[in-house]
Amino acid sequence: MSSEKKKKIKPQRPRGFEDLSGNDLAELNRLRNSIQKTYGLYGFDALETGIIEYSDVIGSFLPDQDRPNEGVFSFQDDDNKWVSLRYDLTSGLARYVAENYDSLPKPFRRYQSGWVFRNEKPGPGRFRQFFQIDADTIGSENALSDAEMCMMFADAIESTGVDRGDYVIRLNNRKILDGIIDSLDIAGNKSGSDINLAIMRSIDKLDRLGLEGVQKLLGDGRKDESGDFTKGAGLDNSSIKKILLFLEYGINSKHLSRKKSLENLSNQFDSNAIFSEAIDELDQISSIIDVAGYDEKRIIIDPSVVRGLGYYTGPVYEADLTFNIETDSSLEKFGSVGGGGRYDDLITRLKGARVPSTGISVGVSRLSSALKYLKKQNGNKEQLTVVVLIMDKEKRSLYYKIASQLREAGIPSECYAGDGGMKAQLKYADKREARIALILGEDEEASNSITIKDLMIGKEASGEISDNEEWRSGKVSQKTVSLDNFISEIKSLI
Amino acid sequence: MSSEKKKKIKPQRPRGFEDLSGNDLAELNRLRNSIQKTYGLYGFDALETGIIEYSDVIGSFLPDQDRPNEGVFSFQDDDNKWVSLRYDLTSGLARYVAENYDSLPKPFRRYQSGWVFRNEKPGPGRFRQFFQIDADTIGSENALSDAEMCMMFADAIESTGVDRGDYVIRLNNRKILDGIIDSLDIAGNKSGSDINLAIMRSIDKLDRLGLEGVQKLLGDGRKDESGDFTKGAGLDNSSIKKILLFLEYGINSKHLSRKKSLENLSNQFDSNAIFSEAIDELDQISSIIDVAGYDEKRIIIDPSVVRGLGYYTGPVYEADLTFNIETDSSLEKFGSVGGGGRYDDLITRLKGARVPSTGISVGVSRLSSALKYLKKQNGNKEQLTVVVLIMDKEKRSLYYKIASQLREAGIPSECYAGDGGMKAQLKYADKREARIALILGEDEEASNSITIKDLMIGKEASGEISDNEEWRSGKVSQKTVSLDNFISEIKSLI
Repeated sequence: MSSEKKKKIKPQRPRGFEDLSGNDLAELNRLRNSIQKTYGLYGFDALETGIIEYSDVIGSFLPDQDRPNEGVFSFQDDDNKWVSLRYDLTSGLARYVAENYDSLPKPFRRYQSGWVFRNEKPGPGRFRQFFQIDADTIGSENALSDAEMCMMFADAIESTGVDRGDYVIRLNNRKILDGIIDSLDIAGNKSGSDINLAIMRSIDKLDRLGLEGVQKLLGDGRKDESGDFTKGAGLDNSSIKKILLFLEYGINSKHLSRKKSLENLSNQFDSNAIFSEAIDELDQISSIIDVAGYDEKRIIIDPSVVRGLGYYTGPVYEADLTFNIETDSSLEKFGSVGGGGRYDDLITRLKGARVPSTGISVGVSRLSSALKYLKKQNGNKEQLTVVVLIMDKEKRSLYYKIASQLREAGIPSECYAGDGGMKAQLKYADKREARIALILGEDEEASNSITIKDLMIGKEASGEISDNEEWRSGKVSQKTVSLDNFISEIKSLI
Repeated sequence: MSSEKKKKIKPQRPRGFEDLSGNDLAELNRLRNSIQKTYGLYGFDALETGIIEYSDVIGSFLPDQDRPNEGVFSFQDDDNKWVSLRYDLTSGLARYVAENYDSLPKPFRRYQSGWVFRNEKPGPGRFRQFFQIDADTIGSENALSDAEMCMMFADAIESTGVDRGDYVIRLNNRKILDGIIDSLDIAGNKSGSDINLAIMRSIDKLDRLGLEGVQKLLGDGRKDESGDFTKGAGLDNSSIKKILLFLEYGINSKHLSRKKSLENLSNQFDSNAIFSEAIDELDQISSIIDVAGYDEKRIIIDPSVVRGLGYYTGPVYEADLTFNIETDSSLEKFGSVGGGGRYDDLITRLKGARVPSTGISVGVSRLSSALKYLKKQNGNKEQLTVVVLIMDKEKRSLYYKIASQLREAGIPSECYAGDGGMKAQLKYADKREARIALILGEDEEASNSITIKDLMIGKEASGEISDNEEWRSGKVSQKTVSLDNFISEIKSLI
């Protein structure tokens, strides 16, 4: 054959990309359905934007604006325009809103799920394609929208099977940190400035690197285990000390009620205009959450939360799983499975006017690993029920008719479509995890009957019953019934 | 604000990409679920491969191997390897099978749905991202797998709401045409050769260009309406005549039973080895289809079907919608919504051994347009049920509690999260197509009650009832009930 002469190409998937099948894929779908249903209950509508956007449109959504297109898969269109694979679902939403603004209800509230792409160095557990489920409220400035994000976040996580107490939504306000940074003796330190963002980025690594790591990043910089050096924000010691004191306070205040936490923040830190604004906003959000009955097991105020993205302007949210997982050397909290925040200025560049907005994003792959760890993955792939064995190749049509009748009765069924003998076929049925094998041999045909072999009972029995002879003989796991009512017999088994 | 000073970027989606929302998105999901359920009934398992593959891996799956990467979005990875967005779902499957061969059941049968990408010139109704739902059987040579594809294809189309009689599965065998071409007096004309593929490609345009167009493409070439010239296969007149005679026969034989069609083919055309093989294979497939009870309203043998892809080696299938649609100038059949075929040599380049395979693919966007035309789109977006109006901003928390209680009862509900007054809020509820608006003003609060405004009755009534006064007064469409049992009142309404 000519094609066999061609050079063989190594079949490999690109690094950082995953194939999903079986229960893992069923679990992804289960999580998607649960979370989308929660978003739907809150009145969010589904939207599906494309996977490709113009690069300049998504440019302003990148986390690291110093290095445009860093981390993004970009390529040139047939008319030489640069396009990119979406990095997140927010950028496409912003483009959609700006493009269709006049026809949308205000506020516009939508959810979207889908794959997003990061052109980063892949590694164990670090993928370049992953699944996110977002909800955003566009065009609303009021605290209700922020409160809703926190509560919906909690409901969404819980809907997937995580127990109350095993997760917490951490609420903060960027302006709290803006206020702290404002009070430092640093030139050009206001919100959105380079130095402000550098400080935010350092603080955002608190969960991973601890206070000591953040201290280095706020100062000259930090060398990681691999020897790579990250340049620091270059603050003086007195500024660093003030920030660390604040973070320490944050770490130690997680047990407080939301009310108490806000009181303490007001009392213990030098207030300025922006700091007061932050406290005021959090107070409004908190009072809505109180009334709706979400206690501190579900939503806390945590002043140390930053979230990595540069574009957040106010309240930020993070969904953390709080149970411990064993690593090689220690117990660690599982950590974040999603986050979000208010981004009032982000759509400005596309719309030409301010569009106050807020949103959350659940990282489904992370959540799925967590549920696996908790043994709460409930996604079960649709089970193949019946394999009809091919006893005589000449009679395939007959077997096919049997399978056809079963399908008409809604029972997933297939005829063995390979060319192996009886042994290969039973092995196939086993590998396919089929529930039942149907046998229609000469004996059965002569008596207008069919043999139903229960592969599940067989499996269980072979491990349990003492009379191996009986199992081998098949008495336990199979019976022969009339061809006239084999469907109802099968229905009674499954 | 600093961000407002930045240059405004025009918000536009890349040409050829679509945003989906509302009923259209719900319809996509409905079609996906119906078709996947059908595939599942036949015992196919779900698989999800990535959107990006190495370019050399998918290279052999391109329809036009003369122009590698033509029509594909390709770009360089961070380590300079070329990667591509998937062009179809078959290439990822082939890579997956070759990579995981030993651990898979044989035959391996999977379905997959997802977006695929074509880097082609977009135009009205011509998209560069579209949704396909595929099923394939890998590692089976027997006729059962082919018969199954035809029957499952028919079941899948019907499951979406297309009536029997409005669609037909057209079954053919590439080897029939190979046989015809073999019998021509052309050098190097065997299956898979350049001239063979050029002839196949010309014939594949029969539905679109008619016999006259194909005649030109088989000869010197054809100039289309826009003046673009397509070079022909360069056959001599006697060869062209033989092919056209055969195609004419094909066109006129669609009404025949499968049995009669195969008889006629055997009798009316010069047989050679490959032609006989084709008839034999079709006969086997046909007899399985007969027994399973799929008549000629659902599956016909149509010798003129080719399918565009170069890699098909045997039976090919096409799902056509047969009802007429009105165009500007005439009535036309709606045409193909999917196709497939046997590709026994395709995985060879990745696996190093022959892996006989067959599969089908449904084009969901096409099918969705067809159902829209038939007024059979049944996808309904999840309806928002209740909007709780904000009567007094100071009492937001109270309204939120109401919405929260409704959600706990499983009723999709939201509080108006904008900042507009009563008029803006009712307009919003209308635009959101909410079923009910809830009003809790001073009067209601004083009497521990709530007013339920039925927006649907309101809408219907305003068009129908004569007593406009009554509708305006709200008597028809609203009632005030106790806060203690408003949820059951709402449940009784919806």
